[in-house]
Amino acid sequence: MNWSKVFIPTLKETPKEAESTGHQLLLRAGFVRMLMAGAYTYLPMGLRVLENIQGIIRQEMNATGASELLLPALHPLELWQKTGRDKDLGEVMFKFKDRRGRELSLGPTHEEIITDLVKNNLSSYRQLPLVLYQIQTKFRDEIRPRFGLIRCCEFIMKDAYSFDEDEAGLDKNYQLMFEAYKRIFARCGLKVLITEADSGVMGGKVSHEFMVEAPLGEDVVCFCPQCKTAKAAKGGSSLCFTCNTEMRQVNTIEIGHIFKLGTKYSQALEAVFPDKSGQLKPLIMGCYGIGVSRLVSAIIEQNNDADGILWPKEVAPFQIILLPLDVTNPEIMEAANSLYRQLAENGIEVLFDDRNERAGVKFKDADLIGVPLSIVIGKKSIEEKSIELRVRKDKSSQLVPQAQALNMVKNLLANL
Amino acid sequence: MNWSKVFIPTLKETPKEAESTGHQLLLRAGFVRMLMAGAYTYLPMGLRVLENIQGIIRQEMNATGASELLLPALHPLELWQKTGRDKDLGEVMFKFKDRRGRELSLGPTHEEIITDLVKNNLSSYRQLPLVLYQIQTKFRDEIRPRFGLIRCCEFIMKDAYSFDEDEAGLDKNYQLMFEAYKRIFARCGLKVLITEADSGVMGGKVSHEFMVEAPLGEDVVCFCPQCKTAKAAKGGSSLCFTCNTEMRQVNTIEIGHIFKLGTKYSQALEAVFPDKSGQLKPLIMGCYGIGVSRLVSAIIEQNNDADGILWPKEVAPFQIILLPLDVTNPEIMEAANSLYRQLAENGIEVLFDDRNERAGVKFKDADLIGVPLSIVIGKKSIEEKSIELRVRKDKSSQLVPQAQALNMVKNLLANL
Repeated sequence: MNWSKVFIPTLKETPKEAESTGHQLLLRAGFVRMLMAGAYTYLPMGLRVLENIQGIIRQEMNATGASELLLPALHPLELWQKTGRDKDLGEVMFKFKDRRGRELSLGPTHEEIITDLVKNNLSSYRQLPLVLYQIQTKFRDEIRPRFGLIRCCEFIMKDAYSFDEDEAGLDKNYQLMFEAYKRIFARCGLKVLITEADSGVMGGKVSHEFMVEAPLGEDVVCFCPQCKTAKAAKGGSSLCFTCNTEMRQVNTIEIGHIFKLGTKYSQALEAVFPDKSGQLKPLIMGCYGIGVSRLVSAIIEQNNDADGILWPKEVAPFQIILLPLDVTNPEIMEAANSLYRQLAENGIEVLFDDRNERAGVKFKDADLIGVPLSIVIGKKSIEEKSIELRVRKDKSSQLVPQAQALNMVKNLLANL
Repeated sequence: MNWSKVFIPTLKETPKEAESTGHQLLLRAGFVRMLMAGAYTYLPMGLRVLENIQGIIRQEMNATGASELLLPALHPLELWQKTGRDKDLGEVMFKFKDRRGRELSLGPTHEEIITDLVKNNLSSYRQLPLVLYQIQTKFRDEIRPRFGLIRCCEFIMKDAYSFDEDEAGLDKNYQLMFEAYKRIFARCGLKVLITEADSGVMGGKVSHEFMVEAPLGEDVVCFCPQCKTAKAAKGGSSLCFTCNTEMRQVNTIEIGHIFKLGTKYSQALEAVFPDKSGQLKPLIMGCYGIGVSRLVSAIIEQNNDADGILWPKEVAPFQIILLPLDVTNPEIMEAANSLYRQLAENGIEVLFDDRNERAGVKFKDADLIGVPLSIVIGKKSIEEKSIELRVRKDKSSQLVPQAQALNMVKNLLANL
């Protein structure tokens, strides 16, 4: 894909409004733009990262046996009144009336909506267990939107919901999700801390939070460097209960949260099912969230250097950027186009920097946007019938004969 | 994928609220459910169709050189006031204030938002032409939501926007989109009528509408059966201006609309660029919409029979449904599982009807949900070491030896 077509408005200056490294890099690298506080446009490069993250989430969710659907963002307020959560969430919910006077809200989460759906479409215990998830835009009227994609009024979440006959079923689904979450975050290139947490406005008895360490994080967690145990920082002993060493406090961002809800929603909304003996019982529920758009920021907070972003392989917007250093030189362009075609034929999508810019500008931009592998073709390459391969992460580079370029690229990609 | 996990709540009775064939089938086949008038949940099967349609649109948009992004649904009302369209659209726009008193609206379309984005990120004529698109949820406070996914308050649109230096550039992009639209609708299995249309609230000089014939359609178009010319029905002669034969009036649903906008938005929002001589000029724009969720309904309206839906190949939620007629019979299940694995290894995704239901129920449901090809395995199949292949469209069926099953399935799929 040609740089000139993709729309990647990189910035030389750091925008004033950016409060954290991740936020600055997102803006400078041309991945997002703010429309207003708390609402961002995902530019083509940002959307590609988002799609990659969503792809990982879908794979891991489907592997647990969960099934994807898509619920509306517009909700009848009535359903929220049945659980009383319109009051619990208070001003965080956007509420308004339509032209016919219906009271509506924009969904900040979907427990009420999915419970009502399953209630109306479940006829037998034989349909259980049922695990449904969606990747969808949520709306929360945050009092202070901050840090780019970290705290927004409009953001993308993955929310999954499990429905079981009994507690044993819930325990099983909860464990499946717990393991899936670890795989998802590892594939996103994130080191996570997992803490047993407060269930808050969601209700239920047990919950776990998945956090990443970040200076800007507003949650504080106690973390034991020896046995990697983490727990919420809430006073009490600062010694690790597992290995008895001193824990240290770290700032974190929450990227995932899973809850054993029990019957809070099924009782309030009368979501019952006939069990084997025909007796009506409330569904036993769990819910499982991931802040999808927030992950984009969290990944950058953990993966960057002085020159820009270092995208982990599976989420990178492109695996490769091809840099012809002089687009007015026919020999350079012929070599670049030929390699581009070869890579395309091998199913490798490449960002082709077709801009008539100086080599310095191209190198700086390539480092900034953080594509893992660069292929450089300049005058010297042509003279020596070679190309230069540069690995973004460690800035290592090597000259490779043109004839071996494809194989070397494949090798390097496999080992990133 | 197992039927029991996917969540496909088919209905025996036709729901009372369903006003058209497409709407009835969407509900009965378990593809969508209404949350409230104008807001629908896409159940897993409905979402799969939606994803397939979006995949086709993305392929054809990317092939024109357009680049995908994602704009917010929450808009500052201020931008709409600059073009005066907050008044033009009137009550169709959902408008409300956030907790800090900001006036917001939910985007019914995105001309203002994208024009502002491009204005703020375009520094040179060398970045032109630029074509950007998104597939995104729109919100319109419809006075009378109807016909399932045909007229909703919350719906999915593909909206593309072109930015050019001059009219010649716009003409070129308009033509590219025109051709892409024809390919998209053909791949969706739709016969379209194309009419030159009124630009209405969008503004601009030239526009074309893409329509499908449907009894429920509320647009009326004159159509010449001989030369396939169509035009908006607005009085005047009923003779075709091309071949002079009598035209007939047909009811249609609009599924796409493309507009040459000119400078309406760029002038109002001061979206200018420095041309080659350094002079500031307003961008020349076009916009190009497709009703993505509406397409799901439109496709069903054109592709159904008395027993259910007939999904065109490229949009079908699954290509194949595998029907073991007795899940308590180990021989049948062994044959079914073995074939399922073979198909999976060949990259063919199959819906496996693992329910303990009578054969009659399974056949009826398979017809209703409209998967193009059924593989039936019953007692007779086992005795004769064969399987039965049934084509949904013409109800043709054939017995095939188990050893040849995979090749026959591939052949049939290729020729659907």
